[in-house]
Amino acid sequence: MAMQHTPLVMSRLIDRGATVAPDVEVVTAAESGPRRQSLARTRDRAHQLAHALHDYGIRPGDRIGTFMWNGSRHLEAYHAAAGMGAVLHTVNLRLSPDDLVYIIGHARDRLIIADADTLPILGSLRGRLPSVEHIVVAVEEGFEDWTTDVAPAVDYEEFIAGKPKRYEWPDLEENAPLGLCYTSGTTGNPKGVEYEHRSQYLHTMAQCMTDSMGLSATDTVCGVVPMFHAMGWGIPWSALMLGCKQVLPHRFMDPARLTELMATEKVTLSAGVPTIWQGVKAVIEANPDAYDLSSLSRLTCGGSAPPKSLIRWYHDALGVEMIQGWGLTETSPLATLSRRLMKHKHPSMSLDEQLENVGKAGQLMPGLEVGIFDEDFNRLPHDGETVGEILIRGPWICSAYYQDPRPERFHGDWLITGDVGTVDREEYLIIADRSKDLVKSGGEWISSVDLENHIVAVDGIAQACVVAQPHPKWDERPVALIVLADGADVSPEEILEHCTGRFAKWQLPDEVLFVESIPLTSTGKMDKKVVRADLAAKGYVLPDLR
Amino acid sequence: MAMQHTPLVMSRLIDRGATVAPDVEVVTAAESGPRRQSLARTRDRAHQLAHALHDYGIRPGDRIGTFMWNGSRHLEAYHAAAGMGAVLHTVNLRLSPDDLVYIIGHARDRLIIADADTLPILGSLRGRLPSVEHIVVAVEEGFEDWTTDVAPAVDYEEFIAGKPKRYEWPDLEENAPLGLCYTSGTTGNPKGVEYEHRSQYLHTMAQCMTDSMGLSATDTVCGVVPMFHAMGWGIPWSALMLGCKQVLPHRFMDPARLTELMATEKVTLSAGVPTIWQGVKAVIEANPDAYDLSSLSRLTCGGSAPPKSLIRWYHDALGVEMIQGWGLTETSPLATLSRRLMKHKHPSMSLDEQLENVGKAGQLMPGLEVGIFDEDFNRLPHDGETVGEILIRGPWICSAYYQDPRPERFHGDWLITGDVGTVDREEYLIIADRSKDLVKSGGEWISSVDLENHIVAVDGIAQACVVAQPHPKWDERPVALIVLADGADVSPEEILEHCTGRFAKWQLPDEVLFVESIPLTSTGKMDKKVVRADLAAKGYVLPDLR
Repeated sequence: MAMQHTPLVMSRLIDRGATVAPDVEVVTAAESGPRRQSLARTRDRAHQLAHALHDYGIRPGDRIGTFMWNGSRHLEAYHAAAGMGAVLHTVNLRLSPDDLVYIIGHARDRLIIADADTLPILGSLRGRLPSVEHIVVAVEEGFEDWTTDVAPAVDYEEFIAGKPKRYEWPDLEENAPLGLCYTSGTTGNPKGVEYEHRSQYLHTMAQCMTDSMGLSATDTVCGVVPMFHAMGWGIPWSALMLGCKQVLPHRFMDPARLTELMATEKVTLSAGVPTIWQGVKAVIEANPDAYDLSSLSRLTCGGSAPPKSLIRWYHDALGVEMIQGWGLTETSPLATLSRRLMKHKHPSMSLDEQLENVGKAGQLMPGLEVGIFDEDFNRLPHDGETVGEILIRGPWICSAYYQDPRPERFHGDWLITGDVGTVDREEYLIIADRSKDLVKSGGEWISSVDLENHIVAVDGIAQACVVAQPHPKWDERPVALIVLADGADVSPEEILEHCTGRFAKWQLPDEVLFVESIPLTSTGKMDKKVVRADLAAKGYVLPDLR
Repeated sequence: MAMQHTPLVMSRLIDRGATVAPDVEVVTAAESGPRRQSLARTRDRAHQLAHALHDYGIRPGDRIGTFMWNGSRHLEAYHAAAGMGAVLHTVNLRLSPDDLVYIIGHARDRLIIADADTLPILGSLRGRLPSVEHIVVAVEEGFEDWTTDVAPAVDYEEFIAGKPKRYEWPDLEENAPLGLCYTSGTTGNPKGVEYEHRSQYLHTMAQCMTDSMGLSATDTVCGVVPMFHAMGWGIPWSALMLGCKQVLPHRFMDPARLTELMATEKVTLSAGVPTIWQGVKAVIEANPDAYDLSSLSRLTCGGSAPPKSLIRWYHDALGVEMIQGWGLTETSPLATLSRRLMKHKHPSMSLDEQLENVGKAGQLMPGLEVGIFDEDFNRLPHDGETVGEILIRGPWICSAYYQDPRPERFHGDWLITGDVGTVDREEYLIIADRSKDLVKSGGEWISSVDLENHIVAVDGIAQACVVAQPHPKWDERPVALIVLADGADVSPEEILEHCTGRFAKWQLPDEVLFVESIPLTSTGKMDKKVVRADLAAKGYVLPDLR
């Protein structure tokens, strides 16, 4: 041995921010205004929480559930679990009752830390959570009078009170489990992705690279992406390591409050799904002088592709860079990123070309490998034209689901992502669609995402959702569901006319339907499974079949 | 196993730049003007070199020596060796003949790739290099008529000609050896530090973090630090991974040519020892309008601490950020870094305070751990006052020397760095001195580095070197050797007067000696061992003992 083989465990990173920048704040939104505590206090409280959990009987490898919004106590739970070697199962509050019962039972969570305002959801599961022995209740302003009868419960503050402020983090193997996050499948039960210390350590380092999200200790980060999604995209870890100011919106997720919070706390970087940034844009447009967002420099956008018009709007109106990221719960999740200036040639390109690139899913993070494959798993060329299944591998990519291996989701050491797309000659990954959302018409594929992103650029259109409908001759044909902006008036002909320049005639939707809203999944994406089911329930048939 | 345990081997990183940015240039300085080739061609040639080495008989773990300046072929050697699993022993051209014979023999280099202009140095070792079977000669303009009789030799171009441009990199263990670099000790033989794939992989990721050197693919990097020092501080790896433009000065290391090269190639980031940046400053001051350095944004300074006046000058005159780094060959080498804006509170501090921080060795890279210890290895407080031996540990820190364990340089899993210093309340490491260069006077320590950095701020002083001289009463007393700038006139009294504001009377040098030059080590640092030996040879005695 010539170099030290120090295990890559998160306990080596998480205390660093509080050590180098003890006074920097963690800000949590609350009813009457933000609640603040220093990074040093957050670390002290995390160590106290670890003692409390240990005294309760939690040992390395035991699962702790969190049923929480983004807030300082959720951050403390991340910190404590990682340090002591427990596995943090971040439960998605927005899942259906059946899914919640399934995942809490499947993970065998012994203890759940819950925000008091979420107790009614847990309450609805009473009698169906046999693994849960105890609930620790995190109380925010206005919820002091909580009660629950799901399991014995204790106030979080009482739970940690008087515990020592230093926990000697144990030695762990670097492949020890760290976190557990379930991904809601389209078929079957949710699947658990178990993050390991080493995988998340490497993901954290990658996230802090200049050409990644460019995270710096000087940033004030606001993770809008819930901390119950794929480790909050890793931002809690990176911010704890660097010593960033963190701004946590808790349950106050409406665009107006978010915009206000980002302005008053001088947020420099935020992260969320495109629907969030569509909402913030609408808030600002409605009241252009109300918010000082001059500190804001970057918005990271993941979950689904942001429309190019949105990327352009943030650049032109606010001077804010939108960063597109692509990944899955199974990829920790950062897999590709696209930034305006991330290659040596970019500074000499036109702004249009630069922003065009941001519309692609992006460049692969160093150390990962992506491939485009046909249905027999033959490798396809990176020519920007050949569409295939996207497979990925590397040190922070899932190799098996938690106690549910699902070999059909893997090919050798590759993860089958379920997305289809191309890799262009510049090595940009371009997602055509989720494979289940592609429209297969006459043996050709039509990308619903491409149509949606093109349609949503029409003035007056708030949202567009394209889904496949069955057709006896063509197999499937696309139909567009449109939500208009308040007071807007756009005809189906205008929308189809707008698409003809970009798409072939056979790629155009067979019909444009105006709707009040599009159902969303628990992660804020358009829920096309529900859209298709709704159309079927209404007996929808394509125009030429009526 | 829940996540993939992909080995952290350099072959996963080194081809990336050429894939995402094939047309970006690698520029090598040559007699009549820079020589250029694309990253794609550099990668193709590296794969050809790997084939040639394999065909010659080089196998994973075999040592290949390089006897080369910074140039495209040296970069190809890095790339080929890392990919195929050979160990690149980067030989320091500036070592003494005896040291060269020792390290080449100790490493058992089978093959040496040498720049043609260095063959006379190798030639002087004829008959003393029994392990060396073959020499591959890299020929630059003006050296076409090379000859050598040290071993059978072949032209590099002939060696790789016709080899396939793709080498299937083998599967390696992540702790497989990658590189070998000897550090010239003050006593005994040089000690070999063997870098491993995993350690350098993690070091590369850390180097590309925003708050580290902030390396980006958009950078044009000029590593002035020789690629035979500690893997060229890691810049070759990071630049290959990201797809940066690389500018390599080869043997043209005089400040005027360097300044010219950085200007014409629009270098954004360079790295070298303070003496280089002192030289570049002098070139610019002598001819302020001759160089357009508007692209330059960062100079990374390592090897020894840059004087504060130099940090200030680059900021004020050029708007260039000087980044201070501290590390050793044994630390891969990045251990701490100091930047003007690297903590959340920095943007709200005054410029003076910001630059004051850059004068400290810096903040520890994430994942490393530093401690200050007394001579019995008791941990000392991080209070900015308590001085102790600096020990360090972490995933890219040496755990033993190559076939020469030297247990006295380690304490448990800590490396004893040989530097002494403090850690302040902001967790900045501040180096007081090399432990062997500290002046021990009357039971107290005097930092030679502090005195030098203060003295060199006096107008007209080009260099200052403070060394200890023996004293029967005080044990040791400091003496300052001063090199004046051309035409400058500074008296000893002025220098001592300048120091009295900052230092106690007993800390002032007992004498100021004016000299023509200060001898430098092979790594460009002041060679105090030689300075002390010269004084002894001349029979120097302190003034109060005469």
